Amino acid sequence: MSGSPTDIVLDFIAAWNANDMDRVCACFTDDVFYHNVPTEPVQGRAAVHHYLTSVGRFDWVDWKVRSIAANGNTVLTERVDEFGVGGKHVSLPLMGAFEIRDGKIAAWRDYFDLAMYMRQLTDGSAG
Amino acid sequence: MSGSPTDIVLDFIAAWNANDMDRVCACFTDDVFYHNVPTEPVQGRAAVHHYLTSVGRFDWVDWKVRSIAANGNTVLTERVDEFGVGGKHVSLPLMGAFEIRDGKIAAWRDYFDLAMYMRQLTDGSAG
Repeated sequence: MSGSPTDIVLDFIAAWNANDMDRVCACFTDDVFYHNVPTEPVQGRAAVHHYLTSVGRFDWVDWKVRSIAANGNTVLTERVDEFGVGGKHVSLPLMGAFEIRDGKIAAWRDYFDLAMYMRQLTDGSAG
Repeated sequence: MSGSPTDIVLDFIAAWNANDMDRVCACFTDDVFYHNVPTEPVQGRAAVHHYLTSVGRFDWVDWKVRSIAANGNTVLTERVDEFGVGGKHVSLPLMGAFEIRDGKIAAWRDYFDLAMYMRQLTDGSAG
């Protein structure tokens, strides 16, 4: 994959919005470090693939990018991640940081309020 | 105040690290929109000043900038905000987005896990 660090992150977001977890995980380095900051981090592409697919299939995914900015190999995003899962419509405002190495995502950290997410999984109505 | 949007945000962070809430609030436009995303937003410089000082005085403040990147008038940050309050040492990983207008901060949104913050306020030991 070529392109600027910002392009690489936008490709990654396009893979999410295609709801294609194989394509999502192809954006990672072998030793990717993934941290949903309120929870425990996950290390390695295979472990992250397992993590993302064990949560369950998403019915649909629509990440909206509010802003994106790069500084060298670091790309910072402000997003609203919307998705359907188990008949619930989740709309989660968050920010995420990405570190790029050799055209792949080597680190990904998302920051959000875990209770806001869990409330929507429990109470959310179908979108 | 002059300087790039990034410089303006770094000046704002320096004001925090000086633990000077008047200097912090001087960085805002009159109509600033401030949102600690897990909680209710606050609008207007006077209301934000009241909000920041009604929480109580910080014993000390040390915001560590992990990364910062700008795109036009938007500045995105990844930080660890450390501070002492009421004898507790809080260390909060978070990200924040800033929108700059006429050399001032017109919007500020921080994203973090509220439970992580509350746990430290309740259980944290003095730093």
